[in-house]
Amino acid sequence: MATRFPDPSPPVAVIMGSRSDWPTMQHATEALDALGVAHDTRVISAHRTPDRMVDFARSAKARGVKVIIAGAGGAAHLPGMVASLTELPVLGVPVKSKALKGLDSLLSIVQMPGGVPVGTLAVGEAGARNAGLLAASILALSDTGLADRLTAWRAGQSDSVPDSVED
Amino acid sequence: MATRFPDPSPPVAVIMGSRSDWPTMQHATEALDALGVAHDTRVISAHRTPDRMVDFARSAKARGVKVIIAGAGGAAHLPGMVASLTELPVLGVPVKSKALKGLDSLLSIVQMPGGVPVGTLAVGEAGARNAGLLAASILALSDTGLADRLTAWRAGQSDSVPDSVED
Amino acid sequence: MATRFPDPSPPVAVIMGSRSDWPTMQHATEALDALGVAHDTRVISAHRTPDRMVDFARSAKARGVKVIIAGAGGAAHLPGMVASLTELPVLGVPVKSKALKGLDSLLSIVQMPGGVPVGTLAVGEAGARNAGLLAASILALSDTGLADRLTAWRAGQSDSVPDSVED
Amino acid sequence: MATRFPDPSPPVAVIMGSRSDWPTMQHATEALDALGVAHDTRVISAHRTPDRMVDFARSAKARGVKVIIAGAGGAAHLPGMVASLTELPVLGVPVKSKALKGLDSLLSIVQMPGGVPVGTLAVGEAGARNAGLLAASILALSDTGLADRLTAWRAGQSDSVPDSVED
Amino acid sequence: MATRFPDPSPPVAVIMGSRSDWPTMQHATEALDALGVAHDTRVISAHRTPDRMVDFARSAKARGVKVIIAGAGGAAHLPGMVASLTELPVLGVPVKSKALKGLDSLLSIVQMPGGVPVGTLAVGEAGARNAGLLAASILALSDTGLADRLTAWRAGQSDSVPDSVED
Amino acid sequence: MATRFPDPSPPVAVIMGSRSDWPTMQHATEALDALGVAHDTRVISAHRTPDRMVDFARSAKARGVKVIIAGAGGAAHLPGMVASLTELPVLGVPVKSKALKGLDSLLSIVQMPGGVPVGTLAVGEAGARNAGLLAASILALSDTGLADRLTAWRAGQSDSVPDSVED
Amino acid sequence: MATRFPDPSPPVAVIMGSRSDWPTMQHATEALDALGVAHDTRVISAHRTPDRMVDFARSAKARGVKVIIAGAGGAAHLPGMVASLTELPVLGVPVKSKALKGLDSLLSIVQMPGGVPVGTLAVGEAGARNAGLLAASILALSDTGLADRLTAWRAGQSDSVPDSVED
Amino acid sequence: MATRFPDPSPPVAVIMGSRSDWPTMQHATEALDALGVAHDTRVISAHRTPDRMVDFARSAKARGVKVIIAGAGGAAHLPGMVASLTELPVLGVPVKSKALKGLDSLLSIVQMPGGVPVGTLAVGEAGARNAGLLAASILALSDTGLADRLTAWRAGQSDSVPDSVED
Repeated sequence: MATRFPDPSPPVAVIMGSRSDWPTMQHATEALDALGVAHDTRVISAHRTPDRMVDFARSAKARGVKVIIAGAGGAAHLPGMVASLTELPVLGVPVKSKALKGLDSLLSIVQMPGGVPVGTLAVGEAGARNAGLLAASILALSDTGLADRLTAWRAGQSDSVPDSVED
Repeated sequence: MATRFPDPSPPVAVIMGSRSDWPTMQHATEALDALGVAHDTRVISAHRTPDRMVDFARSAKARGVKVIIAGAGGAAHLPGMVASLTELPVLGVPVKSKALKGLDSLLSIVQMPGGVPVGTLAVGEAGARNAGLLAASILALSDTGLADRLTAWRAGQSDSVPDSVED
Repeated sequence: MATRFPDPSPPVAVIMGSRSDWPTMQHATEALDALGVAHDTRVISAHRTPDRMVDFARSAKARGVKVIIAGAGGAAHLPGMVASLTELPVLGVPVKSKALKGLDSLLSIVQMPGGVPVGTLAVGEAGARNAGLLAASILALSDTGLADRLTAWRAGQSDSVPDSVED
Repeated sequence: MATRFPDPSPPVAVIMGSRSDWPTMQHATEALDALGVAHDTRVISAHRTPDRMVDFARSAKARGVKVIIAGAGGAAHLPGMVASLTELPVLGVPVKSKALKGLDSLLSIVQMPGGVPVGTLAVGEAGARNAGLLAASILALSDTGLADRLTAWRAGQSDSVPDSVED
Repeated sequence: MATRFPDPSPPVAVIMGSRSDWPTMQHATEALDALGVAHDTRVISAHRTPDRMVDFARSAKARGVKVIIAGAGGAAHLPGMVASLTELPVLGVPVKSKALKGLDSLLSIVQMPGGVPVGTLAVGEAGARNAGLLAASILALSDTGLADRLTAWRAGQSDSVPDSVED
Repeated sequence: MATRFPDPSPPVAVIMGSRSDWPTMQHATEALDALGVAHDTRVISAHRTPDRMVDFARSAKARGVKVIIAGAGGAAHLPGMVASLTELPVLGVPVKSKALKGLDSLLSIVQMPGGVPVGTLAVGEAGARNAGLLAASILALSDTGLADRLTAWRAGQSDSVPDSVED
Repeated sequence: MATRFPDPSPPVAVIMGSRSDWPTMQHATEALDALGVAHDTRVISAHRTPDRMVDFARSAKARGVKVIIAGAGGAAHLPGMVASLTELPVLGVPVKSKALKGLDSLLSIVQMPGGVPVGTLAVGEAGARNAGLLAASILALSDTGLADRLTAWRAGQSDSVPDSVED
Repeated sequence: MATRFPDPSPPVAVIMGSRSDWPTMQHATEALDALGVAHDTRVISAHRTPDRMVDFARSAKARGVKVIIAGAGGAAHLPGMVASLTELPVLGVPVKSKALKGLDSLLSIVQMPGGVPVGTLAVGEAGARNAGLLAASILALSDTGLADRLTAWRAGQSDSVPDSVED
C-alpha cells in the first residue's frame, strides 16, 4: 500500500488531532527523547483528515511502528479510531478542552467498548509525558538497553524529589 | 465504488454501533414510520467494523441517502466519524451506558470540533425518537406531503396531552 | 399574522438569547457566509421577550425560513421553546456559561423530551460554527450549487490540516 | 382573555409537564392539603402544548392565582417559561430523569438568567413537598390563619423526629 | 428575646456567610432598590457565628421581616439552617466557589430534605439578582404599589432587549 | 445547661439526620463495637430539630463526648453545623441520596469553609465504617489498650484478605 | 528477595483489590485465554495488604512478569501504587463503585501525575476485557505467534458483527 | 528500624506529594502555628518516592507522631496509602488540580474502602487550614492547654466576623 508516512518508521508514532495539541503532546516526545526512544510526530485529524488517519493506522505495523501515542480534545475520536484500524498498542492522551476542561476528552477516549482497547493517560501535560514513559516501558520489554535507561531514569526521578518544602 | 449497502437507498439511514442499541434506536424508526418516511436500518460499528463504516459513509450520498441517524454508547465515535466521511446531515443519538448513564455517550457525540457537525439529540429513547422527527423535518423542507403529515402529527401530539393529572 | 420579522426571510435565521452570545454565535454566521448561505441575525430572549419569541417562531415557516439556529446559555430555553413553536429544523448552540462552563447550557438544550427535537452542537464557538455547517448541509439537500460549494469547502478543510506539528 | 383555566382559581396552581410527573408532584399537593391551602392541578407541557402554557401563565394573575408550582424533567423549560410570562412567584421542581437522574432537570430550572427568577427546590419528591410548603409560607405572609397552621405543622414535624434510631 | 438585629426590620433581609460574598449579593440589593423594596443587609456565618444566626432567624418574623435572602458558597449551610429556624420564606443564592465553581454551593443549598424548603436561585450574580426579584414578587402579592412597579419593570426589561446583535 | 442527652456520655456520639440513615450508620457502630469503644446513638436533624442539635453540640464536650460522628444525606448540614457548635473533632459521613447518589451529600459535608473542619469519609457504608475506625484511632492516642486492640484488628484485617480470587 | 508469588511467573499478572472485583476482572482473563496468553490471578489490596502489594510489585520484573493488569474501585490506588513500584507496563481497570458508579475509580486511576504512568481502560467489564487485549497486543510485539492469533481474533470480531438489527 | 525522619518527631506531620502543593499546604501549618502545635513538614511522593513513604508511615507512630496531614492532587494516593501503613489518624487535603479543579483529588482521597479511613477536608486552602484545626482538636482531647487555646481561637474567630458587608 502506498503511504505518505515514513517507511521504515521509528518505533513510536506520536500523532495528534490538531496543531493546537502540540504544546501538550510535546511532553510525550520529551519523555521519549530523555529515554533515547526514536519517534515520528504528525498532525492527523480523525474528523478533518479521515483518509490520512486510515492510511496512517493501516500501514503503521508494516512500517515498523510498535506503539502509537494519540492525543486529542473534545469529542476525541482519534485514539479509538486508530485502535480500531491497527492491532498495535494505542495510548490515548486527553487534551484539555476549553469549556469542559478535558472531561469530554477523557470520557471520549477511555470509555471504549470491549474489543478495541486504548490505554488512556491523564488529561493534559502529565498524561502526555506518561504516554511517552509507558511507550518506553512497553518497548523496554524486548530492549535491555532501554530497560536499563528506564531503570536509571526512574531512580533519578526518585532521587530528585526534595525532602523539604522550600529551598 | 462497489458497496454492500442498498443502491438506491431510502432517504434515511438509521445505523447503530451494536445490536444492543436497537431497543433504543427503534424509537427513531417508529417516528419515521409514523410520518411515512422510508428508512434503512443497519448495525455498523466504528470500532469493530471500521471498513464497513467507511464504505457506508463514503457511498451514502451517491446511493441517495439524505439524512443519517447514528446511535452509539460509551466512547461513541460512530456519529462523528460518519460525519467526517460524508457531507450529508448526521444526527447523533447517545445511547445510555452502563456505568456513566450516557454522560460519556453524550459528550463523545456532541463535543465535535469545528468543521464536522453532528446534530445531537437527548440520551436514550427520547433522543432516538427525536432524531426520527428531526430527520423528517429536514426532508419536509422539500416534500410538501411530508410537511403536511408532520404538521398533522404535531397538532395531534398537542391535542393528546391530557389536561388532568389522572383519568 | 403581522410580524416584526422580515418577510420574506433568508433561509437561515440565527437567533440568540442575548447580545453577549454574539461573540460565540458569529462563528455560525461566518460559516454560513463562507458557503454563501443568506441569513438573518436577531436577539430574541425566551425569558425576557417571550412574545417576540412566539412571533418569530410561529411566523418563521411562512416567512420562508428553512432552518433556525438558536444559541443560549445557562438555563437555555430558547432552542427548545422555538422548536415547540415551529416544525422547522432547529439547531441549538450551548453558549459557555460563567459558573458551570456550559454544562448547564448543554443539558438544557440537548435533553429535550420525545416529540420536540433540537439538533444540538458543541458548547461554544466550535458548536456555533458547526451549526452553520449543519444548516448548510441541510439546505444543500435541495440546492446543488450549495452542495458543490460544501464539497469544495470540506476538501479545502482536509487539505489545510498541516502534516507537521510546527512550521 | 378567554381561557380554558378556572376563573377564579385557587391561590396555588400546581402544573407539570407530563402525567408521568404526577407521582412526584403529588407530594406538593399533599403538603398543601395538610396546611389547608386550596390548589388546582394541571398537565401543561412547555414543548408539546406551548399555547396552553401561554394561556395559563398570561391569565394566572387575573384569575387569582398567587403562587405557581411547576414540575418538569430533562430539559425542563416549564418553570422558567411560565416565569417569563407572569410576574407571580414561580417555584420549580426538578423531576428525576431516566439517564441523568435529574441533574439535567435541576440545571435547566435553576440556572435562569438575571431578570426572570424561579425559586428552585430539590430534585424529586422532597422538592415537590417543599414547593408546597414554600408556597404556603408565602401565602402565610398575608393569612394569619395559615401562618398559625404552618407554625403548628412545623412544631409537629420537630416533635415527630424520634430520638432513637430504632423503635 | 433580646436581639442585636433591628426591630422593626425592613421586609427583606439579605444575609451572607462572608464579606467576600458581597460582590455577588449586592446584585440582590440592587434589584430590591430598583423596585423600591426596603432591605437590611448583614454578614452572618452559619459556621463561624452560629449564635448570631440563631438569634437572627428566630427573631426575624417578630421583627417584621417577610422574606430572607441568604447567600453562601462551598458547603453552604446558611440558607438551609435559617430555613430550619423560621417559617418565613427563605431564598438561597449559591455563591461561586473557587475550586468547584459553585456546584458545591448549589447542591448544598437546593437539595434540602422534605420539610424545610429553600427556594434556590442560580449560581452567582444572576441568582442574586433574581433572589431580589423573587422577593419582590412575593411581597407584591399584598402590595399593589409594588405589583405595579414590578409590572413596569418587567415591561421595561422586555423593551430593553435589542433586536440586533450589534449597535 | 439542662440537656436531654446522657451526662456523662460515652466517648463517641453517633448521630444522624434521619432514621433512614441508620442502615448506613450502623456500620460505624459495628466498627466501634468490634474495637470495644462505647458509644451513644441518636437521631438529630439539623433541619427538623435545630434546637435538639444546638443542645446536643453545645453540651457534648462537658458531657464527656470526645469524638462526634455525624451522618446525613442530600443537603447534609448536620456534620458542619455540629462542628460550628463544638470544638470536638467531628467526622462526617455522606449518606447516599436518591437522585444524585450521594454527590450532593459529599460536597455538602466536605467543602467546609476555613475555620470549621469536618473530617469527611466516603459516601455510604464504607464511610460509616471508616468513621468508626477513625474515631477509634483518635481515642487510641491516649488509650494504650485501645491502641493494642486497633493494632490487632488491623493485622487481622490484612490476614483475612484472601490471595486467590475464588475459594 | 523472598516472595510469596510464583517464580517464574506467567507473562501477565491480573491483580485486583478485592474478591468482589473478580466478576469484573474475569473478563480480562477470558480475553487472555482466548488469545492463549498465560496469566496469574491474585487478590492484592493496596490498602489492606500494603506489604503484599510491595512484595508483588517489587519482585514482578525479576519473576518474569511482563505486563500487570490491576483492577480496583472507589479510591482505587492499586494500579498507581504498583506502577510506582515497578517499571513494567501497568494497565488499570476502574471497577464500577456503588455510589458514584465508577467515576471515582476512573479518576483515581487515570489522573496519575507525570512520571508514573498507568494505561487506563474503561469502567467495568469492557475495560477489563480491553486490558486483556491490550496486554496481548503489547506481548505480540515480540511474539509473532501471538501476533498472528491477535490478527485472527480481530478479523473474527469484525466478521461477527451482524449487519441487521435483529435475527 | 533506621529512618531518615526525625526521632522523636513533633506530634503533627504535614506531608505533601510535591513542592507545588506547598502554597496550599502551608495553610495547615499556619493554623498549627496559631494554636502552638509543633509540626514537621516534608515532601513525600507516593508515586515517585514510594520507599520514602513506607519508611515515613511505618515509623511515624514509634517516632511520636500523633496525627498525619497529607495533601496531594490528581490521582491523590498519598493520604490513603499512608493510612494503610499506620494506625495513626490521617487527615487528607485534596489539592486543586489543573484540569479537573480538584474533583479528581477529592474523590481519590475521600472514597476509601471500608477498613482504612482518611478524614478528608475541603479542596484547596480552606481544606489545608481545616486539617490543621482538626489535628489540633484531636490533640486537644488530651492536652488541656491546647484545648484552652483552641477555645479562645474559636471565640476570636466568631468575634472577628463583621456584621456589616462593608467597612
